[in-house]
Amino acid sequence: MTQPTIRTVAVVGAGVIGRSWIRVFARAGCETRVFDPDPEQLARALEWARESADEDEALGFIDAGAAAEEGRAVRRCDTLEEVLSGAGWVQESGPETLAVKQRIFADLDAAAEPGTVLASSTSAHDMSRIADGLPGAGRCVVAHPVNPPHVIPMVELLPGEATHPEALSAAVAFLESVGQSPVQMNRYLPGFLLNRLQAALLREAVFLYGSGAASAEAIDTVVREGLGLRWALLGPFGTGHTNADSGAGEYYRRYGDAYRETWRELEADPEFSERVIDGIHAETEGIYGASATEALCAWRDRVVRRIRALKEDDPPPGGSTPVSGR
Amino acid sequence: MTQPTIRTVAVVGAGVIGRSWIRVFARAGCETRVFDPDPEQLARALEWARESADEDEALGFIDAGAAAEEGRAVRRCDTLEEVLSGAGWVQESGPETLAVKQRIFADLDAAAEPGTVLASSTSAHDMSRIADGLPGAGRCVVAHPVNPPHVIPMVELLPGEATHPEALSAAVAFLESVGQSPVQMNRYLPGFLLNRLQAALLREAVFLYGSGAASAEAIDTVVREGLGLRWALLGPFGTGHTNADSGAGEYYRRYGDAYRETWRELEADPEFSERVIDGIHAETEGIYGASATEALCAWRDRVVRRIRALKEDDPPPGGSTPVSGR
Repeated sequence: MTQPTIRTVAVVGAGVIGRSWIRVFARAGCETRVFDPDPEQLARALEWARESADEDEALGFIDAGAAAEEGRAVRRCDTLEEVLSGAGWVQESGPETLAVKQRIFADLDAAAEPGTVLASSTSAHDMSRIADGLPGAGRCVVAHPVNPPHVIPMVELLPGEATHPEALSAAVAFLESVGQSPVQMNRYLPGFLLNRLQAALLREAVFLYGSGAASAEAIDTVVREGLGLRWALLGPFGTGHTNADSGAGEYYRRYGDAYRETWRELEADPEFSERVIDGIHAETEGIYGASATEALCAWRDRVVRRIRALKEDDPPPGGSTPVSGR
Repeated sequence: MTQPTIRTVAVVGAGVIGRSWIRVFARAGCETRVFDPDPEQLARALEWARESADEDEALGFIDAGAAAEEGRAVRRCDTLEEVLSGAGWVQESGPETLAVKQRIFADLDAAAEPGTVLASSTSAHDMSRIADGLPGAGRCVVAHPVNPPHVIPMVELLPGEATHPEALSAAVAFLESVGQSPVQMNRYLPGFLLNRLQAALLREAVFLYGSGAASAEAIDTVVREGLGLRWALLGPFGTGHTNADSGAGEYYRRYGDAYRETWRELEADPEFSERVIDGIHAETEGIYGASATEALCAWRDRVVRRIRALKEDDPPPGGSTPVSGR
């Protein structure tokens, strides 16, 4: 892997997302400082990061000795001043409330050194509002990961209205240098890219289930053993590109009207009641097992990383863009 | 693999979908008879099936000698009567026009032996209309695959109004016995399950691109390096099941309102003009290469099969359902 473009990083907020960011940065060789106002959450996150690195070593995802090296790169900090000292990147993963984010960013902007980029893991809020009125609004950016970021590389980058282009390009370079796959949004839309695309699929899945057209298992199988096998390799446009001899343009010209017709059939506001949710829950337990969330997530993370390794070993032909950042 | 529940199969229509079905059935050990009214298309399909099996042997997807055995199981037929003789399953993959399908099914129903199941690969038409008025409407069923079915296992099964339950259960048993993953729809909806789910995702992708919110590459990366890595393992409901400690019910109860809010933001009828299609095409070529459809499809098929092998070697914990049929 390349060297990280920023050597010292502050992780602020050490919940489920923050703890996974510890691994992203420490694994890449960054001096990784971690702070959380709740000392117990902080201790749990550091313990989780150690155990997670050990597991990765045992599974062969990182080299022998790498977990110990990662551990040495991580430092527990008990104050905001300590975590920010010397940090060139701050990854904030606090509670998802606008007022809380605004307060945290005011504190970060007041205490961080001038060149430091301030990134938020928010999945919902506009950086124009989080950093509104701050002297350092130009260095603030949204860097929203997919959970968990140490397993799934995609990170959504969104500037606020005041964000400097240099802060955005520094963010792209840094995230790529630690093995993530940053994608940029040009402007804020509620839900960003990822949650809008996810919600679009879920809405139709909820409609198909709730209307009695198919079981939850049938709908999940269509994705897991059908569409998803392709989407792990090719996004919606790449999928179109493989569906006609001369590529996406030919395909969408030929089937544009058929898609528009299907779009008119889709339900905009499906029933998502207690009845529907209870039914989905019961059937989903039947497919994937009850109360097995932790084991199921460990399985997902393991297989996702093996899929990423497959893609690295066998990249797409003729492409100009690396499919994966690490 | 288990033995196929039906030993002799007729492939009627040998275009891109039909030729891939040849491989599904022959690989599973079925006596596979193939007919197409166009003798050149028939010859090309049989040649493709031979070459494809050889490639699979070279890549290690099938055992040594298996390609030769597959080849011996395939027989070219020059008439409908010949292809139907002794067949217990007919897989029709003709042109996607209702009137043509109706004519083909009338011919099939008149000539096939009484116990034979008549399945259509249609992605669009209702079996209630295709088989309307036929004496054997009870044995007719839609079996819509994902292209290409010898690589991607999911098959949508839809009864028509007249379809007998026994024909449907015979179809489930047979498709599972040849290594596919059949899913059942309870009733016809335009686009079935797969194309509705695919169209739902594409609509939002087209909107995000056309509105200037992000590049085609950013949108494809969100799926390919984010959502799609999970969707290859867990459908939309399985994904929800991993997002809260006690599973899908807890997750959807907690975030139901947030999803509804995002649903209201999604665009129902995005611009899908020449301008948008040309832009998507140009950017997609930049990502995946120009005029590389054949190589790109070969790559996709190779990596998809390796993903399926990963899933077979490491199935989800606690689940009661096999993730993959072969």
